[in-house]
Order: sequence, then C-alpha cells, then structure tokens
Amino acid sequence: MADRYFEIKKTQGTARLGRLRTPHAEIETPVFMPVGTVASVKAVPQETVEELGAQIILGNTYHLYLRPGVDTVRKMGGLHGFMSWRRAILTDSGGFQVFSLSELRKVNEDGVTFRSHLDGSSHFFSPESAMGAQIGLGADIIMAFDECTEYPAERERMRASMEMTARWAERSKKYFEEHKNEVPWRGQGEAAAELRSTGQPGAAALTQNGATQALFGIVQGGMDRALRKESAERTIEIGFPGYAIGGLSVGEPRELTREIVESTLEHLPKDKPRYLMGVGTPEEIVEYANLGVDMMDCVLPTRAARHGLLFTSEGKVSIKQARYAQDAGPLDPNCGCRVCARYSRAYLRHLYASNEVLAQVLNTIHNLNFYLETMRKVRVGIAAGSAVG
Amino acid sequence: MADRYFEIKKTQGTARLGRLRTPHAEIETPVFMPVGTVASVKAVPQETVEELGAQIILGNTYHLYLRPGVDTVRKMGGLHGFMSWRRAILTDSGGFQVFSLSELRKVNEDGVTFRSHLDGSSHFFSPESAMGAQIGLGADIIMAFDECTEYPAERERMRASMEMTARWAERSKKYFEEHKNEVPWRGQGEAAAELRSTGQPGAAALTQNGATQALFGIVQGGMDRALRKESAERTIEIGFPGYAIGGLSVGEPRELTREIVESTLEHLPKDKPRYLMGVGTPEEIVEYANLGVDMMDCVLPTRAARHGLLFTSEGKVSIKQARYAQDAGPLDPNCGCRVCARYSRAYLRHLYASNEVLAQVLNTIHNLNFYLETMRKVRVGIAAGSAVG
Repeated sequence: MADRYFEIKKTQGTARLGRLRTPHAEIETPVFMPVGTVASVKAVPQETVEELGAQIILGNTYHLYLRPGVDTVRKMGGLHGFMSWRRAILTDSGGFQVFSLSELRKVNEDGVTFRSHLDGSSHFFSPESAMGAQIGLGADIIMAFDECTEYPAERERMRASMEMTARWAERSKKYFEEHKNEVPWRGQGEAAAELRSTGQPGAAALTQNGATQALFGIVQGGMDRALRKESAERTIEIGFPGYAIGGLSVGEPRELTREIVESTLEHLPKDKPRYLMGVGTPEEIVEYANLGVDMMDCVLPTRAARHGLLFTSEGKVSIKQARYAQDAGPLDPNCGCRVCARYSRAYLRHLYASNEVLAQVLNTIHNLNFYLETMRKVRVGIAAGSAVG
Repeated sequence: MADRYFEIKKTQGTARLGRLRTPHAEIETPVFMPVGTVASVKAVPQETVEELGAQIILGNTYHLYLRPGVDTVRKMGGLHGFMSWRRAILTDSGGFQVFSLSELRKVNEDGVTFRSHLDGSSHFFSPESAMGAQIGLGADIIMAFDECTEYPAERERMRASMEMTARWAERSKKYFEEHKNEVPWRGQGEAAAELRSTGQPGAAALTQNGATQALFGIVQGGMDRALRKESAERTIEIGFPGYAIGGLSVGEPRELTREIVESTLEHLPKDKPRYLMGVGTPEEIVEYANLGVDMMDCVLPTRAARHGLLFTSEGKVSIKQARYAQDAGPLDPNCGCRVCARYSRAYLRHLYASNEVLAQVLNTIHNLNFYLETMRKVRVGIAAGSAVG
C-alpha cells in the first residue's frame, strides 16, 4: 500500500498509522491540524506552535484572499515565508467560508459571487480562481473547490450540489495541473532560494526534486449515504493524492456525523490519506482516528480557549468560574504543557476574569497541547497495537 | 557608599552602575521595570518576560486590590506565587491610580475614599490600609502611600499636598515596621516553603536570612523646586532604604520634568537607590539614567505596542501603515529579539491590520526588548566609562 506520498506503517482494526510526505515536512498520521485562519494560530507565536509539536497547520483561503490578499502572500514566498512557518500548511478551498460567512452569495455553474464579510465588497470564486489563490498562497496541501451543502436539505438539492462539486473537482484538477509550477516556493525564484537558505530538510528537498503542492478532492453528498458513495466514486474517478470528507459538522446530530463518516470511509481508497474536515471534540477526534481518518482540523481548541473553556484529562473546565479563584493547583495535573507546569487555576481564572490578553495566549497553548497530545497518544496506541478500532 | 541593600559599583559623571539586593533577585541598576498592572505584563507570558531579561516588574496595588483582591493573592503566596514570577516585584502605593482612574474620590487627613472604576463600589485607602495591601501582595519593594499632586496646581495646594504626603509617609513607615513580618513568603508558611522549593537563589536566601520587603519613600512637591527640596529632606528625615520621585509625567512639559528630576536628585542620598516613577520614552530613560536615576518604570513600551507603535534603532515605526504591507525586512535590522529574528514587517502589519491577538503579543515582546536592551546598553556604557553624564 505504500507510495512515495503516503505510507501506512501499521494498522490496528480500522485505525492507521501513516506517514505523509509534504514538501515542507513529513507528517505522522493520524494528525490534528490547528487552524491558523489568517496566517496566525490565534494568540500563539509560531515558535510556540512548533514547540507544541504541530506538524501541519491550516490556513483559510477565503480570509487570506480578503486580507492581506493572495498577491501579498505570494510575493513574500507564500504562506510559509509570509508567516514564517517552516512545517507543512494546508489551505481549504474557500468554499466553506464563502457559504458560512459571506453575504448575498449567488451560486451558478461558473462559481460563486459573494460579498466580503469585512467591507461588503463583491468577489467571485470559481474552481479556477480558488485554485489560483491556493497556488499563490503556496500551502503543501490544497483543496478542490466544492459546494458545502447546507443542512438540512432535500435529496434533490443534495444530489445537485454533489454533482456540481464533482464537476468543480474536475475543473479544479485541470487548472491545478496546468498551473502547479507557479507555486511561489518552487524553482529558482527569490522565495525558493530564501526558503532553501533556512536549511530546513523539507526546504532543501523542495526545489531539488521538483516537489510541489498536492491537491485533495472533497467528497460531499449531504447526509445521504448513497450520494456520499456516488460522490466518493466520482471524486476517485477524477483522481487525487488524498480525499477529504466535507459538508459535515454543519448542524446535524453527532450520531449522523459518525454514521456518514463511517459509511463514506468504506468507499475511499485505503492507500490514500483521508481528511475529515472541521471536527471535533477530543473524544470525537479519537473516535474518527480509530475509524480510519488520517487528518482532522477544528477551531474548537483555539476558539474554546478564547472563551475560557479548557480541555483536561479530568474533563472540561470553565475557567471563569468563581470556584477556581483560589485554586492553587495546575489546570490539569496530568498535563505537561508549559501552562500547567507554571500557572495555577487561580491565576488563569484571574486573567480570564480581568479580560487580560494573556488569558487567550495561555488558554490556547493548553488546549492546543491537549489536542496534539491526544492525537500523539492515538498514534502511540496504534503503534503498540492497543488502539480501540 | 556600599551597604548590604544597595551597592554602587561605578559612577560616570552623575550616572551610577549599581546592584540592588532584593529578596527574590539581585538587580543591576540602572534598571527599567516593565509594568504588569494586574499581575500580567500585558500579552506576554512570564517565561518570555524572563527570557527578555527583565529583572524586576511592577504591579499596581489599586488594580490588584480591586481584582483579584489582596486576600486571594496573599493566599497564593503573594504576587510571586500567584503569577509565578520568580524575580523581583515592586508595587506602587495605589495612590497614583486612585487619583487618575477612580471616581468621586474624597481626600482627607485619614486617607482617600474612592469608587472603583470597574463597578462603582466604594473603597478607602489610608497609609495603613495601603501598606496592609502591599504587605499582602508581597512585592520585594513597596511604596509609601502618597498624594500625587495634580498639574497645574497653585503653590499653596502643592505645599499642602506635599505636607500630607510627608505625614502619610511617616504613618506608612510606622505601619510597615509593625507588620512587615506578615509578608506571605516570609517564615515557615506553605507559601514560603513552596518558594524555597523552586530552588531560586533569591528564594533560598529569602527565608533563611529573614529578608523581607523594602519600603521606599516618595518625594512630591509638584513643579516647585523649593517644595521638592523640602519634600526630599522630610522624607529622608523619616528614613527609607530607597527614594522615589513621584508626581511627574502628569501633563507638564518635558523640559519641566527634566528640571524637577535634576533638582530633586541633588537632595537625595547618593548611597540609596533612586526611583523615577512613570517615565518615559527610550531617549528619556537614557537621559534620566545619566542624571543618576537608578530605577524607572513606564507603560509606554507595552501600551504603545498594543497600538502598533514600535520603537526601533531607526526610530518609531507605526506598523499599521500600508507602506509596510509588502516589506519583507525585519522590524528592526539591528534588533536581536525573537520577533525581529523571525517575522517580517509585512507580517506584523498584517496581524495588526487584521486585529489579531498575536499582534499584541509580538509587538509587546519587541518593545519590551527595546527598552530592556536600551538600559543594558546604558549599564555597559557606565561600566566602560563612556556614558554621557
């Protein structure tokens, strides 16, 4: 099952321990990818995100396209150069944010016309322009432009949306194949030279062996198992080095999410990486990894942190509560992160209650560590043959 | 001129290179003290403040008294334990914030009745209660309760205010001498034991040799040189291990600040540390150090950082400006801080323009480094005999 790009080292039930080779980093899977919406994992410096062991982070094409703009990022050597992140990056297609954040959107076969949530200005994303944007942003993994079907939806609407996503996937791939050599860090340009000069192993390989971005396809089909199967088959027919399951976590019950994930996974190639977009709680990411998902991202650890909701080995802690005001213990006695090693619950509670910026910084560091450590344990479990598959 | 508490190692003109021995740290002077208003140097984790080389930080009694409250801090072992800061801390008396932030304040000989700027609740600070609060907070250096005279003021008002500050200084000292053994980290209590267990040199010495807090007096007298002289003499008559110049940077022209500082310094003992409160720009802290000031604090580096105003070797940079949008260079090419080592002006500008929390974090780290490095250079200059005195 091994290929150059993705190698499965071990399986345990349906769970897989793998290695994904991207231009900027080799990634151990299953992997959790922190979300760095506008080229920042909110509140945390890149050196700290590295220290936490994040192997790959996410950028949102919709946000970056609006601000600072693709042209600026491209001129800085792509996202890696712009934000000074040396490991891997994945960008989404922009589709999900266009559907969830923008105003007055109009969808037709060509693409989507939408208004910016920032200033109301009018913009257009097509499969081609979304690919152009993602090539300019220069992530290691980019996503085909899809339509995220709303929930709930009628079956005819789910079918029509799934079919348009399939046609858009074909156009996305065509554009990508014709333009993939335009990625800012490939070849002999200034950005590529500067990247090589960092001495990162990935950077060296990058321009020497002609490695470039990988484009993943996205399976849609709403909450209908038959449509999901058809979407998987049509996406595989087009052919991608990895496949994502999109259109989940859009308001449906968790049981339904799990059912659709499980049934869709059956139709995805075993030898390609499988990326479940936008999930979940710590329990859910373990569950999905054990079902055979290789990659996940979610804003939950970072967003919850900013609202004082912290994940610990003893359950969720709402740090704003008065009961922690004089609690000298660490947030999580079983956690080795720098926050739990140094600060008390009383102090974290005070920072949150006082609306101090440091609350966001420390809470985010802890929650990210919890998620990344959770996934490390899943990998160790598969390696040891003790994963619950 | 040497004593156990403060030793002057070298002078160059009026400038002095010294060493201040506090219970938690030995401090090289002249020193700049970052402000950590409510037990946080805003936006920056304590480990980063340490890494930047801060030897001592400031806490504001007024803010800490209101939130989280002195009792909570005391139970956590004082500010050192509460915020997990192992080096030295200084707290102000609360007087300045009562005068600048609180509402409906009424001053009489006993003290000041004021309403909280947070919730309008009514409170009372006297020299005795302000000392009690500062003993509970447990900083290494605490300040006598003073009245900060407003500017401009009539001479009679300046005199009356200065005289009340002198009487309050006497009451502050009396209360301190009677209660200084109540500091939370002294003796055999749990907080003291925990502090010793950190293995910090200061912590070990702390409880072994019975070291405790030092109370500094504050010279007032408005913008009148004769009143400043009289205030200095009366404060020295009471007797303190260090003397502060208060009541400046309250709206007066900078020339006048300098004139009052210079004339007041003449009346302060040469062998005691001199602390100029609440100044200033990078140029000013160099100037005052060269006049013979040993300690300074200011919110400017941290507050300006949060507004995108950055201090560099090439002058001030307003990072929000569009001219930096595609500037791949470091913020300050002559700066060795972790921000300048890793991030571009373009990225810092993007973070600020996108209202990202990381902008506050990175900008504050840089500005603090600039101030601390500025003062390090002053010390090196005095040691090398090249200071401009």
